[in-house]
Amino acid sequence: MKSENRRGVIPGGGRESEPDMVVAGGMLLTMVEGEAPLQDVSIYIKKGKILKIQKNGEMPFEAGKGCVERIDGSRGIIMPGLVNAHSHAAMTLFRGYADDLPLKEWLFEKIFPLEAQFLSEKTVYWGAMLACMEMIASGTTCFLDGYFFQDGTVRAAHDTGLRALVAQGVIDFPAPGVPDPGENVAAAKAFVERWRGFSDLIMPGIFCHSPLTCSERTLQGALEASSDGGTLLQIHLSETLDEVIAISEKKGMRPVAYLERLGLLEKPLIAVHAVHVDEEEIALMGKYGVRVVHAPESNMKLSSGIAPIDRMLKAGVTIGLGTDGSASNNDLDLFLEMDSAAKLAKISSMNPVCLRAGEVLKMAVSGGAAVLGLEREIGTIEVGKRADMIVIDLDAPHLRPLYDPISAIVYSASGADVKDVIVNGRVLMKDRVFTSLDPDEIRGEVREISRNIGLRGK
Amino acid sequence: MKSENRRGVIPGGGRESEPDMVVAGGMLLTMVEGEAPLQDVSIYIKKGKILKIQKNGEMPFEAGKGCVERIDGSRGIIMPGLVNAHSHAAMTLFRGYADDLPLKEWLFEKIFPLEAQFLSEKTVYWGAMLACMEMIASGTTCFLDGYFFQDGTVRAAHDTGLRALVAQGVIDFPAPGVPDPGENVAAAKAFVERWRGFSDLIMPGIFCHSPLTCSERTLQGALEASSDGGTLLQIHLSETLDEVIAISEKKGMRPVAYLERLGLLEKPLIAVHAVHVDEEEIALMGKYGVRVVHAPESNMKLSSGIAPIDRMLKAGVTIGLGTDGSASNNDLDLFLEMDSAAKLAKISSMNPVCLRAGEVLKMAVSGGAAVLGLEREIGTIEVGKRADMIVIDLDAPHLRPLYDPISAIVYSASGADVKDVIVNGRVLMKDRVFTSLDPDEIRGEVREISRNIGLRGK
Repeated sequence: MKSENRRGVIPGGGRESEPDMVVAGGMLLTMVEGEAPLQDVSIYIKKGKILKIQKNGEMPFEAGKGCVERIDGSRGIIMPGLVNAHSHAAMTLFRGYADDLPLKEWLFEKIFPLEAQFLSEKTVYWGAMLACMEMIASGTTCFLDGYFFQDGTVRAAHDTGLRALVAQGVIDFPAPGVPDPGENVAAAKAFVERWRGFSDLIMPGIFCHSPLTCSERTLQGALEASSDGGTLLQIHLSETLDEVIAISEKKGMRPVAYLERLGLLEKPLIAVHAVHVDEEEIALMGKYGVRVVHAPESNMKLSSGIAPIDRMLKAGVTIGLGTDGSASNNDLDLFLEMDSAAKLAKISSMNPVCLRAGEVLKMAVSGGAAVLGLEREIGTIEVGKRADMIVIDLDAPHLRPLYDPISAIVYSASGADVKDVIVNGRVLMKDRVFTSLDPDEIRGEVREISRNIGLRGK
Repeated sequence: MKSENRRGVIPGGGRESEPDMVVAGGMLLTMVEGEAPLQDVSIYIKKGKILKIQKNGEMPFEAGKGCVERIDGSRGIIMPGLVNAHSHAAMTLFRGYADDLPLKEWLFEKIFPLEAQFLSEKTVYWGAMLACMEMIASGTTCFLDGYFFQDGTVRAAHDTGLRALVAQGVIDFPAPGVPDPGENVAAAKAFVERWRGFSDLIMPGIFCHSPLTCSERTLQGALEASSDGGTLLQIHLSETLDEVIAISEKKGMRPVAYLERLGLLEKPLIAVHAVHVDEEEIALMGKYGVRVVHAPESNMKLSSGIAPIDRMLKAGVTIGLGTDGSASNNDLDLFLEMDSAAKLAKISSMNPVCLRAGEVLKMAVSGGAAVLGLEREIGTIEVGKRADMIVIDLDAPHLRPLYDPISAIVYSASGADVKDVIVNGRVLMKDRVFTSLDPDEIRGEVREISRNIGLRGK
C-alpha cells in the first residue's frame, strides 16, 4: 500500500491523500461517548472511510477542493446513520392490509396466507426495494432483516446501496420458498453460502422464527449452520406471553434458559423483542452477551407487551432499536421509533427520567452497530470508520428553536427531516433526491403487486 | 342577498354562482359517518364554504373553469383539516429546553421560571407564529389554546389564517401578564370582551389551569365570566394522580364531583387530559356532556398516566385529540399523535382491537369539531360546511401501497405528507409552500428570542 505522503495518482483521478467527498459545515454529533456536539466542521471521506474531521476555521484541508462530491451540511446536524435492527423489509407489500385485528386472526388468517399466496423472489425484491427507499428517505443506513425469498432482499439492499444483515428465515412449517420444513436449515445454509463474500456491505445470516415455531433439532441445526465464518443468528424471543407459557409447559423452563440449554447463547445471538423476560433471564442474557432488539411500536400495536429495556440496559445487555415489518407498525421510520421508545419507557415505569433521549439515540445508532458486532466500523463518526452518515435539515418549524440537538432528534424530528444519506462513502440521497434508485419504477412495480393482492388476497 | 340563479357579477370578478376555488381530483374522505372514500372527485368552494362535490366523470361543473384558485389533489387524499384540541402554542419557545426531568423539577424549576422571565405579548406572538407555521405544515386547520399574553396568540392565529379557540389562562398564582392573582378572572373576562366578534375564525375563551391551582372562588368567577355569549371554558383535569389525591383530601370528593358541585358541568366544559378518572366520574362526564381532550404523547412523556379513552368513548363522552405544548411532546404533529393514541390504547388494554384507526381519526377531526361545538361548521367535508381541508400527498414510500386510506393516515403518515392546507376557503399552504406567513421572518424572530433564553435562562 502506498504511503499517504507519496501522493501518487490513484484510479479515479485524485491524489492518494485526497478525499473523494466532503460533508461540509453544520453541527456534528459524532456519537462518540462523552463527546459534545461540534460546531461548524467538515468531514472528509475517502474510499468509503472517514479520512479527516476538521474545524472549518482551521486551514482548509489542502485537497478538499478537489473533492468529486460535496454535501452541504451547513444548516443541519451531521450524525451517524441509523441502524434498523429488526425488519422484514418486503412486508411493505402488506402495509395497511390488515390492521386492528386480534393477534391470531392477524397472523394466521391474514399475514401467513398473504405470504403463502404472494411471496416470490420477485415480489420480495420489489417489497424490499420499497422498504430500502423508505429507509433511505428516513435516515437509516443499515438494516437487519429476516424473511423468506431473501435473495430478493439481498439484491434490493445491494441495488440501493444500503448496509444490511439479510437473514433467511427458518421455521418448522411449510414456508414461502421452502415448502418442505425438513429443508429449512439446509436452505438457510445454502443462502448464507451463496451470498458470503458477495459484498462488503451485505452480511448473509439465519433467522430462526422463534423457540416455539422451531424444534430443538431445527434450532441446533441453525446454530451449527451459523457456526462457521461468523454468521449471525437471530431469533424472535418471548414477544408474547402465550409463547413464554407454551415453552415453559413444553420444556419445563423459560425460553432464555431453554436457549441456554440448547447452546444457542454460546455465540452471539440476536434476540428480537425480549418483551416477557424475567430477572433471571435478563441476568442470563447479560452474562452471555445476548444482543437484544427493541421494537416498541410493533409491541404496542400488536399488544404484545412492554420490554423491560431499562432493566436490560442496567444489566449490561446490548440493545438496538428496530421497526419490525410494515404490517405491524406501519412504517420504517426510526426517528418515530426513538420517540415511541422513550415515551413508552416513561409511561410504563411512571418515571419521566426513564430512558433519556441520549440513551434511546444510542440504541438506534451505536446500539444497532453493536448488535451487528460492527461497533468498530460504524455507529460513530470517527477517523478510520466507515462513512455511514446522514444530514438532518433544521429548517422545519418543529426543529426550532434548537437548545439540545439530541432532544430535537428524538422528540421532534421525523424521517422526513433527513436531507442527505451516505453509506460507505456513497451518496444514496442528496437534498432528498434518491441517487441509487428510481422511485417511479419502484412505485410502479409495487402498484402492480399490490393491485393483485387487493384483488385476489384472501 | 342575490339569488344563485341571477348570475350577477359579484366583487372579485366571478359570477355569483361560480366557485372561487376547486380542489380537483384524488380520493376524498368526507369523514361523514358511514361514507366510504370517494374516488376521483372535485370540491368546489365559494366564500369559505363548500359549494359542490362532484365526481370528475360527470359533466364538468359549469363555472369551475373560472376558479381563481385550483388545488391539485389528484395524487392525494382530500380530507377535513385536523383539529388540535389542546395546545399552549407559544411554548414552542421552550421546545427541547428541559426534557427527561422529574415532573416537579420540570414544571417548577424550568417551565414556570422560563415563563416568568421570558413571556411577553411579543414573545408569545412569535412563539405562536412558529406554532401556527408548524400546525399548518402538518395539516392542522384549527386549534384550541390556553396560555398567557393571549393577545399575541390571537394575532398569530389571525395573521396566519388558522381557526382557533384562544383562551386566556386563569391561575391563583402570579402569572405572566397577570401579576396579581386577584385580577385573574377580570383579566380573562376583559380578554374575551376584547376579541369577541373580532373574526369569524377566532373564538376567545377562558382556560382555568386546574381544580388544584384555581380556588373555588376563581373557578366560579371563571364560570360566571364565561356564562354570556357562549364563551367556552377549558380546564386541565386530573392529569396526575397527585392532583386527584390533593383534591380528594381538600374537598372530600374526587375532581369531577367537585366540579359538579361548583356548577362547572352545567354548561359545556372542555376537560383536558382526564387521565385519572374512575367509573363514576366517567358516568358524570357522560351525563353532563363534558368534552374531553386526549393528549397521549404528553401523558407518556411526563409519565402522567393513561386516560381510559375506550371507556369514555363507550360512555358517550365527546373526545378530541391534542398535542399539548411543545415542551412536553415535543411537536404539534397530530398525525403522530393519532398513531400514539391508537398504540397506547392497544398496549394499555393488551387488546390490539382497542381504538381502531377509524376511531382515532374521528377524534382528531370530527371529535375536535364537537369539542368546540362546531360540528355543524367543520369536521366533515359536506356541501354547506366551512372549507377547512387538507390534501395528503401519497408519493412518499411509507404511504405505499394503499389498501386502506384510514390505516395509512393513522399508522403511516406524518405531518410532512400534507401537501395543501385550506382554512375557511383560504389556502394557507400550497404544494408545501406557505402562503400566509413568512417562514424566514418567523425563524429569525424565534432565533433571537431563543438565543436570549439560551444565554439568560435560569
